[in-house]
Amino acid sequence: MRILFLGDVVGRTGRDVVMSRLPGLVSDWALDLVVVNGENAAGGFGITEAIYEDIRAAGADAVTLGNHSFDQREALVFIERTEALVRPANYPPGTPGRGAAMVETRKGERALVVNVMGRTFMDPMDDPFAAVDRVLDGIELGRVVDAVVVDFHAETTSEKQAFGYYCDGRASLVVGTHTHVPTADHRILPGGTAYLTDAGMCGSYDGVIGMDKEEPLRRFTRKIGAGRFEPATGPASLCGIAVETDPATGLARQVAAVRLGGGLSEARPTFWES
Amino acid sequence: MRILFLGDVVGRTGRDVVMSRLPGLVSDWALDLVVVNGENAAGGFGITEAIYEDIRAAGADAVTLGNHSFDQREALVFIERTEALVRPANYPPGTPGRGAAMVETRKGERALVVNVMGRTFMDPMDDPFAAVDRVLDGIELGRVVDAVVVDFHAETTSEKQAFGYYCDGRASLVVGTHTHVPTADHRILPGGTAYLTDAGMCGSYDGVIGMDKEEPLRRFTRKIGAGRFEPATGPASLCGIAVETDPATGLARQVAAVRLGGGLSEARPTFWES
Amino acid sequence: MRILFLGDVVGRTGRDVVMSRLPGLVSDWALDLVVVNGENAAGGFGITEAIYEDIRAAGADAVTLGNHSFDQREALVFIERTEALVRPANYPPGTPGRGAAMVETRKGERALVVNVMGRTFMDPMDDPFAAVDRVLDGIELGRVVDAVVVDFHAETTSEKQAFGYYCDGRASLVVGTHTHVPTADHRILPGGTAYLTDAGMCGSYDGVIGMDKEEPLRRFTRKIGAGRFEPATGPASLCGIAVETDPATGLARQVAAVRLGGGLSEARPTFWES
Amino acid sequence: MRILFLGDVVGRTGRDVVMSRLPGLVSDWALDLVVVNGENAAGGFGITEAIYEDIRAAGADAVTLGNHSFDQREALVFIERTEALVRPANYPPGTPGRGAAMVETRKGERALVVNVMGRTFMDPMDDPFAAVDRVLDGIELGRVVDAVVVDFHAETTSEKQAFGYYCDGRASLVVGTHTHVPTADHRILPGGTAYLTDAGMCGSYDGVIGMDKEEPLRRFTRKIGAGRFEPATGPASLCGIAVETDPATGLARQVAAVRLGGGLSEARPTFWES
Ligand SMILES: [Fe+2]
Ligand SMILES: [Fe+2]
Ligand SMILES: [Fe+2]
Ligand SMILES: [Fe+2]
Ligand SMILES: [Fe+2]
Ligand SMILES: [Fe+2]
Ligand SMILES: [Fe+2]
Ligand SMILES: [Fe+2]
Repeated sequence: MRILFLGDVVGRTGRDVVMSRLPGLVSDWALDLVVVNGENAAGGFGITEAIYEDIRAAGADAVTLGNHSFDQREALVFIERTEALVRPANYPPGTPGRGAAMVETRKGERALVVNVMGRTFMDPMDDPFAAVDRVLDGIELGRVVDAVVVDFHAETTSEKQAFGYYCDGRASLVVGTHTHVPTADHRILPGGTAYLTDAGMCGSYDGVIGMDKEEPLRRFTRKIGAGRFEPATGPASLCGIAVETDPATGLARQVAAVRLGGGLSEARPTFWES
Repeated sequence: MRILFLGDVVGRTGRDVVMSRLPGLVSDWALDLVVVNGENAAGGFGITEAIYEDIRAAGADAVTLGNHSFDQREALVFIERTEALVRPANYPPGTPGRGAAMVETRKGERALVVNVMGRTFMDPMDDPFAAVDRVLDGIELGRVVDAVVVDFHAETTSEKQAFGYYCDGRASLVVGTHTHVPTADHRILPGGTAYLTDAGMCGSYDGVIGMDKEEPLRRFTRKIGAGRFEPATGPASLCGIAVETDPATGLARQVAAVRLGGGLSEARPTFWES
Repeated sequence: MRILFLGDVVGRTGRDVVMSRLPGLVSDWALDLVVVNGENAAGGFGITEAIYEDIRAAGADAVTLGNHSFDQREALVFIERTEALVRPANYPPGTPGRGAAMVETRKGERALVVNVMGRTFMDPMDDPFAAVDRVLDGIELGRVVDAVVVDFHAETTSEKQAFGYYCDGRASLVVGTHTHVPTADHRILPGGTAYLTDAGMCGSYDGVIGMDKEEPLRRFTRKIGAGRFEPATGPASLCGIAVETDPATGLARQVAAVRLGGGLSEARPTFWES
Repeated sequence: MRILFLGDVVGRTGRDVVMSRLPGLVSDWALDLVVVNGENAAGGFGITEAIYEDIRAAGADAVTLGNHSFDQREALVFIERTEALVRPANYPPGTPGRGAAMVETRKGERALVVNVMGRTFMDPMDDPFAAVDRVLDGIELGRVVDAVVVDFHAETTSEKQAFGYYCDGRASLVVGTHTHVPTADHRILPGGTAYLTDAGMCGSYDGVIGMDKEEPLRRFTRKIGAGRFEPATGPASLCGIAVETDPATGLARQVAAVRLGGGLSEARPTFWES
């Protein structure tokens, strides 16, 4: 199965690059499954139902979230009906929505998309390791499902790497999100799970984590803000990871970074482009 | 000028890969200036004088540090005589050592190597932005010095990106360290400064930030430790960034990621290999 | 029922004041139930079995813990047999020991002693609010048990006050620990639960949270440590809270701060001293 | 000199209790110097010029602030003309306002009022210990000034206690603010400085740190907010500390907790009431 995961879409800048490029990638790369993190899609903070539908229409089979899941309060309502919208599984019991969604691919394969949130230097949630155990309990990769994609939304590299190893062999892909900067450590772990510490964001890198740099710089240097954070404009990059799984096992066979457009060095899954 | 910066060397695993590969790179790439972060070189925690000398002998013109600078207490003493060993400039006044060192390259050019520590989700130090202003005051790039390399040792991508833009035009390179995972966002900022959010580490990526994964996983899942952190063994990677500066301005002309060996995707400065 | 709770016993200094004064208080005040937080009893870090037995022998019916529960590794073993030693209930499932203990008082009444840990500015544990719900489920105060004492080991006043209100009406007493400074906000909440944000510590207040002040001051001002933390010596104070419950309901009828000895202003339950 | 310090005034509830009671205390206790922390006076967040004037009119000689200093943006402007309004001294250089104010008392004595902010578990500011050194440099207590009052606005008890000892002998009073809960550890340190870890707040204790408890409880238990924080209503308490200094040295001769009204146990400076 050919899987593409795209990191946090930030504001209109990020949405535009997804809308304009994702449909072409779906066909060029013959993608089977596309997952996009949408926690910053609405002006940098949360997601609206219309934006969710737009990202789905552009080719996403599922949309994941993070600590900004419910910045747009309406998400508490519409998440109940948007079945491919996934919020972190380790929110308290009773939180609207779901922490994992079963998705049927274009070819009729079954993929489980999971979202979990880290807790080091983040709002303290319940144990993400125990949460992913509960989600994956009984969902044997290669038997019950053809693919498992885990978006681990977390701050630190240590928690993310530990989480990757913890899931190794049980997921097709564990990919980090939240820092908005793509890491270059994509690889296949010993148990067969593709791993990347952070997918980076879809948005403008001529800013501070996708936001116009003036206000963040003011806060860092003066310790007093003067306005709101606004998404940075300018040329945008699409960032994420491409994974090809073994149909028999659901584990990763090939993995490549994806970085297209904007000022970043380009990266593509050359194994799909020959 | 040809500059190579290597990220945090972790334990013997990291030292071995630096010792075995750096001398060859210095000659193959005709490097003018090599800076290596050594804050984790001694078993993962700090640095000894012997290790400092070894890294220097392998080709480093300067060694930078970070939050682990003084984990080996003897560093408080020997740092006074190891003139190319640089600790964060924003330690309190009176801290042994220096926050910046002027280095003469093989060709007689002058390079200033600076180390500053971030404070978001780290031990609270004095303002890193004000600290770098003090260090760079009067040190005009291209006139007073031929190169300025700033190692910004920090946790978050936001503080690092803000710091990069803050120094843009005043440094040849601003490179982040501390997370031990290489990012893929190397680029030249609008003002001419080469930038990378994190250089990654020199060590084994089959672990958690370079340490054997068993103990970190235990602490994340059980919340009770059972032993010490030990550097991971296994195939090691050398990670960092390569920058070629314009001799007239000291600003960056070309930039490339460096990732060699271990399980990471390889990256090299192809512009030096033709 | 007459309940005395004493805050974190710090090192030998703290143990000595408990050993010397608690037996007298048990008889003078005709105490029915004594609970002591012992997380710092062994040199400031954790507890040993011998120390636990000493505190019990001095009059404690139960001993609670906190983030330092297992600093002495042997506690992972002996906690299985020390039935009145209670560690935070929101440690991960499978952690040795128990998060609540049923204690029989001198007069044959039943008291439940609960320990829960906060997570704001502390190591992220599972939800303390959900944890106390699970512990108290089916344990109706005044029917199933005669008293419920909850030691909420937490850093911030906001989490502690919220926790107090959350338990109001279900516990005889919710008392905070961990900051090692007694607060003066003891009161009975609207639902009948006695509440105090922090019990303070049993130890020397001529230090920094009970430890000799030299090393903490060095770390705050120089950012580099030079030694270990050692319990402060000098005149020690006994700090805690006294609660008298209504035998019919188990709720609080009277509450008083307890501060005896050392340099603190003295406070006593005058309603037991007439 | 007779000094009264009152902790963080929270919203209208807090302002009302200050307005109604402070004038009487000034005359009943024959106060020479009154300092009030006003960082939460405007709806819980910051201060307006009108509110500042009201607190001054009620008897305050100086008003201190904290991390909420500039929540009301207009404070960046009016603080330049409100000479007895003091914001933390360790804001970055160039921040509007002042970190210390010299106040003349009713009897013509000179008192220096200082505000400094801690940085453990708070926004990282520059070193508070170095900041207070700079403020007090050359201001010898008992010679240059008759009193020095330091409001140390900080989260943790350890940083506050360390700060108290650090200033011991150089200030008449070091009093903590920010946690909104009064501690009971008022005492005179060995060098003669009166000390209290936290003054508590002026406002309603039937809430969570002075705010209506519903929203904080929702956020703690559900991790998703549903509204704004609003000051709690209901009976309010006035909290702080009373210090009598030696006219010859400016050091403390007597110290007492002050807690009046609301549901807290009452405390008064009985040495002024005979
Ligand atoms: Fe994000
Ligand atoms: Fe996020
Ligand atoms: Fe490091
Ligand atoms: Fe580091
Ligand atoms: Fe403690
Ligand atoms: Fe504790
Ligand atoms: Fe406050
Ligand atoms: Fe505050």
